[in-house]
Amino acid sequence: MRDVAVVGLGLHKWGELWDLSLRDMFTIASRNAMDDAGVDHIDSMYIGCMSGGLFAAQEHIGSLMADYLGVTPIPVTRVESACASGGVAFRLAWMEVASGLSEIVLAGGVEKMTDISGDEATFALSTAADTEYEGYVGVTFPGLYAMMAAAHMQKYGTTLEQLAHVSVKNHDNGALNPNAQYPFPVTLETVMNSTMVAEPLRLLHCSPITDGAAAVILCSVELAREKYNDRPMVVIKGSGQATDTIALHSRADITSLKAVEVAAKKAYGMAGVGPKDIDLTEVHDCFSIAEIMTTEALGLFEPGEGGAAAENGVTSRDGSTPVNTSGGLKSKGHPVGATGIAQIIELTTQLRGDAGKRQINNPRVGLAQNMGGSGGSSTVHILERQ
Amino acid sequence: MRDVAVVGLGLHKWGELWDLSLRDMFTIASRNAMDDAGVDHIDSMYIGCMSGGLFAAQEHIGSLMADYLGVTPIPVTRVESACASGGVAFRLAWMEVASGLSEIVLAGGVEKMTDISGDEATFALSTAADTEYEGYVGVTFPGLYAMMAAAHMQKYGTTLEQLAHVSVKNHDNGALNPNAQYPFPVTLETVMNSTMVAEPLRLLHCSPITDGAAAVILCSVELAREKYNDRPMVVIKGSGQATDTIALHSRADITSLKAVEVAAKKAYGMAGVGPKDIDLTEVHDCFSIAEIMTTEALGLFEPGEGGAAAENGVTSRDGSTPVNTSGGLKSKGHPVGATGIAQIIELTTQLRGDAGKRQINNPRVGLAQNMGGSGGSSTVHILERQ
Repeated sequence: MRDVAVVGLGLHKWGELWDLSLRDMFTIASRNAMDDAGVDHIDSMYIGCMSGGLFAAQEHIGSLMADYLGVTPIPVTRVESACASGGVAFRLAWMEVASGLSEIVLAGGVEKMTDISGDEATFALSTAADTEYEGYVGVTFPGLYAMMAAAHMQKYGTTLEQLAHVSVKNHDNGALNPNAQYPFPVTLETVMNSTMVAEPLRLLHCSPITDGAAAVILCSVELAREKYNDRPMVVIKGSGQATDTIALHSRADITSLKAVEVAAKKAYGMAGVGPKDIDLTEVHDCFSIAEIMTTEALGLFEPGEGGAAAENGVTSRDGSTPVNTSGGLKSKGHPVGATGIAQIIELTTQLRGDAGKRQINNPRVGLAQNMGGSGGSSTVHILERQ
Repeated sequence: MRDVAVVGLGLHKWGELWDLSLRDMFTIASRNAMDDAGVDHIDSMYIGCMSGGLFAAQEHIGSLMADYLGVTPIPVTRVESACASGGVAFRLAWMEVASGLSEIVLAGGVEKMTDISGDEATFALSTAADTEYEGYVGVTFPGLYAMMAAAHMQKYGTTLEQLAHVSVKNHDNGALNPNAQYPFPVTLETVMNSTMVAEPLRLLHCSPITDGAAAVILCSVELAREKYNDRPMVVIKGSGQATDTIALHSRADITSLKAVEVAAKKAYGMAGVGPKDIDLTEVHDCFSIAEIMTTEALGLFEPGEGGAAAENGVTSRDGSTPVNTSGGLKSKGHPVGATGIAQIIELTTQLRGDAGKRQINNPRVGLAQNMGGSGGSSTVHILERQ
């Protein structure tokens, strides 16, 4: 398999976008990515979308987007792995280019979440859990992550302040991201006193409901060197994907994330690097406890040390292990199908040195971790500037 | 990229299966496929499912099925391309093995369609069309295919009798398929007098609502020769996938199927064969007109000749160009995500010489064509017995 580069990035401002439809957002992000790469065509396309059906009464997303982007009759495939749909779309685009089957492939993601009520959106999201054994007894995602948080606090002594520091840090970063849904800082006190959602998780520990899309263009390193070599080259060095039980009650331990550990091991192995080689990381902070648990699962910190890392500034932009410089899901927003692609965009932007006020100092290797449900699936990708 | 073989087949009896859930059906089909192949593990899995969300309030299908099949933590990806979801899952499994990334990959499909009302199922299926420009004005799939049928009749003189002969022929075949939902013959008179659904299409021109799953095991030809060589080897020689506009009104011509033509051209080119080399074909007869139009798009017949081929017995089991020996979607049933995989199973069964009473005479090359929506997406695969 051959090496693959990320040569184009496309985003738009995320939020509650009542004037943009599912197809509008995806088309805008994809056109931006094609413009950024300077490509006039693509050979194939993968689209991460969790639930076009429940959120927007629209399936057959591949045909729809090929049509509205004006790229028929190329092959287009929509993939779903709940909130890890974008990461899976990226992995398949990488695989298609790496295999030699195609030259230029777009990986995108999209979700239109605010055209239905909050109750309906909570229900739609709950279908990422085990509907028969979790959903039908009334548990939704804040409840599932609250159980994980409570267990983590009990086992490791993780504190409410540490959870809150994750949100504060991510809002600090998101305040510098012009595409973020909530681009403003929040204080520790505001987080600690926000509305209780599911004890111990309060409103400002939870990522929001978001409309948004994101897209990237991939091609072989060979083609990139030949045609798209006008800026730092960002290469995909490792890809991992894994599953775990969909229901929380089936796991031996709910304070760790097996799918993340396995996906990370695969990606590290393929890239020939370890946690100490990673200069910046985007993780799936759907809830503040998720950032703590994913950074531990990735081996960035020992189990139980993720909370302290946030509290002590280790994961801040100027810390030794920056995490979620984009603002994360918390501040940037979480249009579930698009999130995994936006993580790749943040890494590539930072590796290119184009992150403006939130740029960290000369990063070379970045890692993106995207997660579905309560950890039932995960992807990990490692990018390197060459 | 290396050659890939189909070494395991898994089905179960399809129908209105109130005692089997989404996860039950997929697990049964997958276990059957693993048993048929004689494999004790798989490296990765792709699952075609059109709308777990609208049909069964369940997304995150990859994690769910990995969990219930007992194969976590392997990577599992659910793909959606409306009724072509199964064909796309098969293509990605092929790509993953062909690329060298994995050795043994399962491609499956599943849909649980009867746990909701007929009205709700019709709505769920309608999301394979353009919701904003087709669905919201009230058109559903029988209406869309009725427009295509009327145009085809006007342009080419295709007759009501020819449409009915497709259904009669497919029920003749399905009567010999123990896994079919409706395994009995129907007479021309019965079809011609069945309830009108959307003029000119009557009830017995329409494929049914079905619960079902299907799964196949793929591995490299090299590994197959070494380990799974106890029966005729069936190899994937060509794969094509394409898109067209999602809405019918955006097409220059609604009597042809562009996505099928493009996917077929790709698959023929990769396989180094043409329509005349195909010994048997499984096509996407979601409505009887679709079988006529797809056989024309595949180049098996000239445009306008598909209807006569059905009427004159050319596409019958003992004809020169057998089509849908399985019974097709009409008699076998159409659990939308599973259909594309079941087509591969019929081809492989026939190529192995294992099709029992519906076995055709010594076929060597088979073609499967799976389609999404009103032709907004299509896959074509060519298999060869070696």
